[in-house]
Formats: sequence, structure tokens, C-alpha cells
Amino acid sequence: MATLAAELRQRPGPNKPDFDEKDKSAGTVPASASDSDEDDLPVKPSKPPAPPPQSSDSLDEALKDFSPRWRNWLIRGIFTWLMIFSFAVLIYLGPLALVLVTFAIQIKCFHEIITIGYIVYRSYDLPWFRTLSWYFLFTSNFFFFGESMIGSFGMLLARQDFLWPFVKYHRFISFSLYTAGLVGFVCSLVKKHYLKQFTLFGWTHVTLLLVVAQSHFIVQNVLEGLVWVLVPVSMIICNDIMAYMFGFFFGRTPLIKLSPKKTWEGFIGGAFSTILFGILLSYVLLQYDYFVCPVSYDEAQGGLSMDCVRPHVFVISEYTLPETLQGLLKLVGSQKTTVSIYPFILHSISLSLFASVIGPFGGFFASGFKRAFKIKDFADTIPGHGGIMDRFDCQFLMATFVHVYHFSFIRVPNPQNIVQSVLTLKPEQQLQVFLLLQEKLLKRGILHSISADSSI
Amino acid sequence: MATLAAELRQRPGPNKPDFDEKDKSAGTVPASASDSDEDDLPVKPSKPPAPPPQSSDSLDEALKDFSPRWRNWLIRGIFTWLMIFSFAVLIYLGPLALVLVTFAIQIKCFHEIITIGYIVYRSYDLPWFRTLSWYFLFTSNFFFFGESMIGSFGMLLARQDFLWPFVKYHRFISFSLYTAGLVGFVCSLVKKHYLKQFTLFGWTHVTLLLVVAQSHFIVQNVLEGLVWVLVPVSMIICNDIMAYMFGFFFGRTPLIKLSPKKTWEGFIGGAFSTILFGILLSYVLLQYDYFVCPVSYDEAQGGLSMDCVRPHVFVISEYTLPETLQGLLKLVGSQKTTVSIYPFILHSISLSLFASVIGPFGGFFASGFKRAFKIKDFADTIPGHGGIMDRFDCQFLMATFVHVYHFSFIRVPNPQNIVQSVLTLKPEQQLQVFLLLQEKLLKRGILHSISADSSI
Repeated sequence: MATLAAELRQRPGPNKPDFDEKDKSAGTVPASASDSDEDDLPVKPSKPPAPPPQSSDSLDEALKDFSPRWRNWLIRGIFTWLMIFSFAVLIYLGPLALVLVTFAIQIKCFHEIITIGYIVYRSYDLPWFRTLSWYFLFTSNFFFFGESMIGSFGMLLARQDFLWPFVKYHRFISFSLYTAGLVGFVCSLVKKHYLKQFTLFGWTHVTLLLVVAQSHFIVQNVLEGLVWVLVPVSMIICNDIMAYMFGFFFGRTPLIKLSPKKTWEGFIGGAFSTILFGILLSYVLLQYDYFVCPVSYDEAQGGLSMDCVRPHVFVISEYTLPETLQGLLKLVGSQKTTVSIYPFILHSISLSLFASVIGPFGGFFASGFKRAFKIKDFADTIPGHGGIMDRFDCQFLMATFVHVYHFSFIRVPNPQNIVQSVLTLKPEQQLQVFLLLQEKLLKRGILHSISADSSI
Repeated sequence: MATLAAELRQRPGPNKPDFDEKDKSAGTVPASASDSDEDDLPVKPSKPPAPPPQSSDSLDEALKDFSPRWRNWLIRGIFTWLMIFSFAVLIYLGPLALVLVTFAIQIKCFHEIITIGYIVYRSYDLPWFRTLSWYFLFTSNFFFFGESMIGSFGMLLARQDFLWPFVKYHRFISFSLYTAGLVGFVCSLVKKHYLKQFTLFGWTHVTLLLVVAQSHFIVQNVLEGLVWVLVPVSMIICNDIMAYMFGFFFGRTPLIKLSPKKTWEGFIGGAFSTILFGILLSYVLLQYDYFVCPVSYDEAQGGLSMDCVRPHVFVISEYTLPETLQGLLKLVGSQKTTVSIYPFILHSISLSLFASVIGPFGGFFASGFKRAFKIKDFADTIPGHGGIMDRFDCQFLMATFVHVYHFSFIRVPNPQNIVQSVLTLKPEQQLQVFLLLQEKLLKRGILHSISADSSI
């Protein structure tokens, strides 16, 4: 971090935000809009040599015979494979490891963004600013993580005597903690620093909203089944790489003014590759229960379990082909009118489309942010890649999409969970639910035929 | 609004945030910390004359014979009573009117804060900024309002064919709308304005978080029963007035450096008055079902209903007195060991304590914000009071507290709602829930004795 701080202080341009920029050409981007330090796809291979990477010293030493450009590529490549390998190890280690690493990444991203605010606004002598930021990070994690855990394991946790009040009063405790932070913030206000303090309060809260809140969707996706994290994360990586490749070899037509190195060829090639890759990867993963089962508590084993009756979306179903396709198949002599596939494969196409069409806007957003504050990368955590935040900019938006998609189109209420929630009521209310349900089911004819068997 | 804009532009001090302030005395507030334009409680009656109020011209004309100080007091007083009267009319008109007015207030507060950002950062030529802000206001209201409505009337709304997809896919639609805004923001980025654009993006989002999200807690509180809005809103008003009165007549000891005109005497007097007032008001309101019943849909009448079986918290219960109190009563010859009161009366004490101890920090926060941007009021919407936001700064925090308090300590799951949610499942799942529940209740001995009667 010290190097970023030093770098920002040494930067020749103004560090402080210049709210007086008077640009009459609003709405049009000058032809020279491309900053030399940006990290986008090249239209032509003749990219000027990249600045020397901020890599670790020992690696620098080993690669000192290469030209700066090749050195950068090598370091970036090595760390790309290192990250992909680490991700594979994580998947092997299981959901708990994945959740812990998500936490670590989220905290590092928060640290990177807060540090930028800290440096940009020269907040070295602001009382309590760092302490309060970390405190707000703690309270929001307490809230979101608690909500996830209670959503998935509430009934289980509530059975422990010492955890029960935390489950029952979780929102009240979270609110109290947050309010204490707010009171602390107000008490820390110092006349000459009001503006900085409020600016950094806003900065902290937007970071919490964009990083902490979204990272908890990753945690919830992990709990729904590893496939809901593994597939989308890989899709973003695949789209990044393939859009780059297609752009590198076939790129001709500029895509948007904001990122002059992105091309339509890269965009379309990336999208098709991601769809194909998504289908293949999904097909492979769906062979293993380990990837498709949500994390649940197994009472018999007394521990977390990854076994389940497969949810509908992971069971091969028969789909009737559209009539035009049936017609085409008839032409080649096939009488096929249906096709048997996993429903998830179809959903994977939606995910791919989001990853390749909307996903990049997460990256554009982050890249605009970096340019606004005139920094190259969020930090220099990963040699050749920049900060953790530089690699996760699209992943957060993708995770939120997957979470909302799962909630809207996949999730089916679990009968077991409904019954568990009834059992937390008072006995007379449990009975009331039962009788009311019996009455309704009898009226609907759902129960009538079986009521005789079941009332033994 | 035009006057605020003009006022800010004419202001002699710097409008643009000055991030280069170099104050070595961080951590200590100079004795002159009290800005002359602040709006706090006076320690001594010898307050310097207030600046002339920004009141409507006709009223100004009618009061032109009074000194500026008295004119300000009169106008402020008249509009205070006008607001209290309007609030009473609203309560009479019922929950729907209250929800609509909450919306209007929220939109106005958003407008006031966004306008300040617009002026402070001189964003006159930023492309799309106003449009995007209003769009984000729309999407977040769509999301929050939808969540409230689905939470309260989901089953009912889902029965309408044309509303059903909005209920089922509400989160997906909200996310898509928001994402479209995000894409729009990224596409609107213009090289020379990056910093301003990201600053205002943050500004909009913090406003959404503080104003829009919290205002929806007011809506949810209305739906839980009018008393959950009427009592807390009145408490904040009562505490404001009584803390002022006590401070005015008895104020000697300064409370905190941030607001040098607040005194311990005002603080303590306000708290005691608010507790007493809360108990009295609650006692009166609890006599009427109109105030305590949640809004529900009455199938027989085909409309919204305010009748209910009173929730436990609004029914007189017998409490055993603490032993020390029993001992004291014995001394005066009373054998009383129990007391019969509405449980809500006890809860009203918690609410009063929050309103008088933590509530003012909402005001301190707003007042710090106004000083940070060197403005007297958020706007000049209400003559003598400033902007709507000036009167609602504490109300938002209070509403969130009430919402969390109700969720944590009052809410009991409604058997009717649980059964309704089961009935949305597929028939075989409905049956599965029923059989599972039957099994569990038999095992627990809750059903055993009655199963014979009910399985007719």
C-alpha cells in the first residue's frame, strides 16, 4: 500500500479533485480520449510498450533479461494461471473455504478503495476516519453475513442456547451497532474538516453498497450450490480472455467511445465463446452432485452436507423443439420432435449473455472511476494485474445478477423449511396453521383422497 | 428552488469544496465553533436577532410591522401549527393518504439534496445527470415499494392476472431497471467530467440510501398500524419542542461541542417530557382499533380493512411488579403485587428513549452536513423552517428504529400468511408440507389429542 500512497503523492497531475474543470465540449469525446495508462483491448496489435509492471522484486530479478513489455506479459500470465489454479483448489476445498476467501477478497477490496479516498482527500489528520470506516465494514458484514446464515441455517442456529438471541434479535443488534457508528461519526465531526468528513462518509457508504453488499450475494450463491459461483466466475474470466483474443486477431470496428480499444469483433467473439464455454462447463459440472447440491445441515451426520435430491433444474428434462427446428430436422430425415437436456444448460445461456453483454460495464465503471481519480490500478496487490478490485470489478455485478436470477427463476420454496418455520411458533399457533391448512387443502380437493391414510 | 440556487451562487465564501483546508488544530473545536447561521437551541435567551426568514411574500407583507426577530418567530409558529394540523388531517384520512404523503415528502427531500449537489459541484453541463438521478429515484422506489406491497398484499396482488408477473419477478425487474441506469451512467461518462460524474453518482446513491430506503420504513410502519407512525412522529416533535423549552428556561450546562446551544437541562427535560407524552398519547390512541390494527385486505368487503383481532401488544396484560416496588407499596399499606397495563405502553418508553437520546443525532448529522456545504437550510420550502429535509432529518432515523424494533420485538408470524404462502406451491408440495407438518405435530404431541376431531 505504501507504494500506492507514494505514487499518488508523487504524481505530477493534481491529486485533489478539480471541481473547477471548465470543459465546454461536454457530450463529445475528443479523439485523444484514450488514456495511455488504460487497460483495455487493443484494436491493433501495435500497442505501445506497457509501463513496467509493479511486480514483486524476486520475480523482477528472475525476468530482468526480458524487455519490459514481455516481462509484463509473462508476469501477468503467470499470475493469471496462479489465480485460476487457486480458484480450482478453493472449489476442491469446498463451500466453507470459498466463503472465507470471499470475505478476504471483500475486505481487501474495501481496503483498496478506502485507501484511495484516504489519499485523494488527504485525510491524514481526520480524527477517527480509519477506525470508523473499519467499524462500518464490521457492522455491515455482521448484518449481511447474519442474514445469509439465518436464511440458510436459522432453525439450526436458534437451537443453540447462546446463539438464539443473535438469531432472534439479529436486525436489532445490527441496527444498534450501525447507529453507534453514526453517533461516533457525528461526535468525531470537527469544524474545519466537515466537508472532508462528509465526503469520506459518503465514500465509505458507497463502497459498502457496491463491495460489501454485493460480495454477500457471492456467499449466498455458494450456499445455493457451487455451480452458481463456479459457472458465473468462469464465464467472466472466459469472456475477458476471449474478447481480448478476438479483438487482438480480428478487431477492426470500435465499440464505444469510452473504451476506444474495445471492438465489436471482440465483443461478439467473446459472447459466442462464453455461451459455448458456459454450456460445456455446465454439462461437465452437472455430472457431480458435489457441484449442484446446496449446502445443508445433515441431522444424522451432525454436520454440513453436500448430498441432496437434485433440484429440478439439474435433472434432465424433455423439451419439445420449436416447429421451425422440427421442420429443419425433417429435411435431413430426422423425426426428432423433442430434446433431452438439463434445464440448467438453458439457464447458462442467460448467464453467458449477461456476463458478456452487461458484465463488461462493471469493468467500464471501474475504469471510469480509476480515471476520475487519475490512478492506473486500485492497488498493486497482484503483480501484473493491479489490485484485487481490478480483477473483481465485473464479478460483483455478475454475482448480483446470478443471485437475483436464482431468486426469481430457480428457487422453489423448500417444504422442509416451511415446516421448520411453523415449528418455531407457539404450540397453539402451530395447531392453528395445521387446521387452517387442512381445511384449505380439503376444500381444494388436494387432501381429500389421502386424508384417510394420513390420519392414523 | 431558484432562490437557493441564486443564494448559493452569490455566497461570498467558496462554493466549491476546498479539499486543501489545512487545519492543524484537528481534534479541538475552537471556542468560536458556533456558526452564526445555525439553528440550535439557545443557552441563553439573549440570542442575537435571527436573519430575516425566507417566507412567502404575502405573509411578509402582513407582518411587516413586527421586528425581524418576532416576524421570524410568528412565521415559524404559524407553520409549525399548520404542519401539526395537516398531520392530524392525514391521520384522519387514513393509511393510504399517509403513504402518498410519505412519497411526496421523500421525493421532495431527494430533490432538495440532489439540487444542493447539483449547485455545489456546478454540474450544469453534465450530460444526463438530472435524468439519471430521477431514474435512480424511480428504480429504487419501484424496488422498495414493490417489496412492501408484496410483503403485505403479495397473495392478493398475485391473484390479478396482469399483476402476477410483477409480483413473481419483482426483484428481477427491479435489478434490470437499475442495471439499465448503471449502463446509462457509464455511457454518459465524458472524459473531462469523470470526477464530477462519479462524485454525483455517489451523492445520488447516499441520498437514496438515507432518504428513499428509510422513507419506505415509514410506509411499512403505516401498514403495521397507524400507531407505529403517529406515536414516533409525535415523539420527535415533542422532544424538539420540549428540549427547546427546557433549554430556554433552565439551560446552563453545555451538552456537546458540536452544538454549543444544546444543554444538558434541555436534553434531560426533553427526554422526561417525551416519555410522559409518549405514555399519555399511547394510552389515548390504544382506545381505538383504528390506530392499532394493521392494514389488511378484507375478502368479504372486497377492500382494505382496519378491523382486526387486537395483536397481543395492544391488549391489557397483568405484570408482576418488581419486588422492591412491592416492598415500597407495602410500606404505604397496599397489597398490590401486579399491575394491569397495555404492553405497548412499556414499549412506548423504549421509543421515547430513542427519540430523545439517539434521535437528535439525526439532526446533528443534518446540521453538520449543512455546515460542510455552507448552507443554512436544505431549501426554503416551508417558511420559517427551511426545506422539508430540515424537518425530517430525525424522522427518518426514528422510522428505521421503529421498523427494526417492531420486526425484532413485536411482530408475530401470522398463521394466515403462512398458510397463504403454502397455497402458492404446487399441489404435491402443498401435500408434502401438510404431511410433514402432521408428522412433526403428532411426534410433539401437539396434534395427537385433536387429530380424531379434525380428520372428518
